[in-house]
Amino acid sequence: MRIGILGYGNLGRGVEKAVAVNADQELTAVFTRRNPSDVHIETKGAKVLSADALPDMKDELDVLILCGGSATDLPEMTPGYAGMFNVVDSFDTHARIPEHFAAVDKAARAAGKVGVISCGWDPGMFSLNRLYAASILPDSEAYTFWGRGVSQGHSDAIRRIEGVADARQYTVPVPEALDRVRSGECPKLTTRQKHTRECFVVAKEGADRARIEKEIKEMPNYFADYDTTVTFISKEELEREHAGLPHGGMVISTGRTGENRHVIEYRLTLDSNPEFTGSVLTACARAAFRMNQEGASGAKTMFDIAPAYLSPLSGEEIRAKML
Amino acid sequence: MRIGILGYGNLGRGVEKAVAVNADQELTAVFTRRNPSDVHIETKGAKVLSADALPDMKDELDVLILCGGSATDLPEMTPGYAGMFNVVDSFDTHARIPEHFAAVDKAARAAGKVGVISCGWDPGMFSLNRLYAASILPDSEAYTFWGRGVSQGHSDAIRRIEGVADARQYTVPVPEALDRVRSGECPKLTTRQKHTRECFVVAKEGADRARIEKEIKEMPNYFADYDTTVTFISKEELEREHAGLPHGGMVISTGRTGENRHVIEYRLTLDSNPEFTGSVLTACARAAFRMNQEGASGAKTMFDIAPAYLSPLSGEEIRAKML
Repeated sequence: MRIGILGYGNLGRGVEKAVAVNADQELTAVFTRRNPSDVHIETKGAKVLSADALPDMKDELDVLILCGGSATDLPEMTPGYAGMFNVVDSFDTHARIPEHFAAVDKAARAAGKVGVISCGWDPGMFSLNRLYAASILPDSEAYTFWGRGVSQGHSDAIRRIEGVADARQYTVPVPEALDRVRSGECPKLTTRQKHTRECFVVAKEGADRARIEKEIKEMPNYFADYDTTVTFISKEELEREHAGLPHGGMVISTGRTGENRHVIEYRLTLDSNPEFTGSVLTACARAAFRMNQEGASGAKTMFDIAPAYLSPLSGEEIRAKML
Repeated sequence: MRIGILGYGNLGRGVEKAVAVNADQELTAVFTRRNPSDVHIETKGAKVLSADALPDMKDELDVLILCGGSATDLPEMTPGYAGMFNVVDSFDTHARIPEHFAAVDKAARAAGKVGVISCGWDPGMFSLNRLYAASILPDSEAYTFWGRGVSQGHSDAIRRIEGVADARQYTVPVPEALDRVRSGECPKLTTRQKHTRECFVVAKEGADRARIEKEIKEMPNYFADYDTTVTFISKEELEREHAGLPHGGMVISTGRTGENRHVIEYRLTLDSNPEFTGSVLTACARAAFRMNQEGASGAKTMFDIAPAYLSPLSGEEIRAKML
């Protein structure tokens, strides 16, 4: 299975690592909108090419994994390249998924290709767990908690404040909320009751720390609805203690059958968010290729992928080893 | 969707409860090998019929859910009825799944029906979690723990000992083993290191308790390889404290991407094992019917079911609400 990666940021590097440990996949090339000679990849034998070369690579790739951002890249990229390749993306703007799905579906159907959108862990594995639980226990309630982990969007929002040199923001589930949900009481929880936000900030020399802290805590959507703590640290401490991109979280569904309560919990504890996400994308690339080989086309999500398609093993093998 | 249930023990009753809360499903009849007039079901409007009537019901049912035992019932029943109906079973003798699959596949294909085997939580939801984790992280290791919960097979084994009036056996994961697995160290664990077994036994009057305890603890396969505790209690205490059939457990997969560790944990805490299993079977019945309507036939497992087929909601709805 010949894989292409478009975009070589954290996620693209995560996909590269994942492809390297899959015996049935081979990285053909990384495509970049930067100058290819400035991009240095790890995979021996794979090329670095300009994104402009993609239309000429239709016969060289089985799946193209799109590692762009959801805000502006993927809404263009995924429908665009679904007209040429089987594609996989990690589009995660939940509110815009229906329109993204429709655009990818149209392009992929016309080209006879498969486009799997919104792969990763949320959307992705967490979505699957919400769906499985709701299908098994129709009256259940699903609670999603994120963290403890680094939110890159929130870290970026802090960095845009005047006087901030760098920042790292952790999203943290509130332990009491987890306990209440796991007990099966189906609580109504506000935004503030579910998560807290911990901000580690490097201030520029002479910056007004009190003002920075106030601006963070009052920032609408990002922080105003949360109990937020701000800790100023040195650049060295940030680099030493907060270099990684850990994340994770859990989906807890609780429901009943008559008198009896059931709790279903799916939990991820990830040292590297982009590397795990890249690993999910890579498994979905396998499914996209196989489903397309069997004649499928159009947009898909992980909801539409029979789990067996994600595995390199045969049906006989997975039934014997994992069922 | 017109549902039939064959067998009205704990599992059959669990399926009945699950069908009752699914707006798109209707229980047509419960089929029994007992005298139908001795079987009293909860669903108003549904019939109780002899299992002998099934061959005449081909046009009356969309799916038949088989609630027999794996030892002797299902190896006959599932291939037999897959020649007449879309069927779903909970066959759980792991070692015999390949031959069961082959037998059901042959019958279902010949009849143009779908037969979904080995649905439930293990095999079933736990299997899915082993497969998803292994597909995402190919070098990961999956650990399955069961309990704390009642093992009916082990309870039955104790009841067969001379002098035992009744018994309840709980399978319990060893906390230290869970901690080691969650830490990501990928330990090699023996049977004894993973689970303990707690037995609550009602002895007949005058029975030799020391002998009963010895026979339990030395019973090969069931208890000899475990740290087993035996507690003698009264019939009243058994009925008061151990009437339910709670179960559950967890699948914990740990793997790496380069230096980074990831832990994936799926945990079930179930007040009623048969009612939860019945709920999974019922969701799989929905999938069997839909896949058959789209032209599929043959044996399937949950590995072969795209998750969307399990939900009563449309693709648009699940993408908007759960993705």
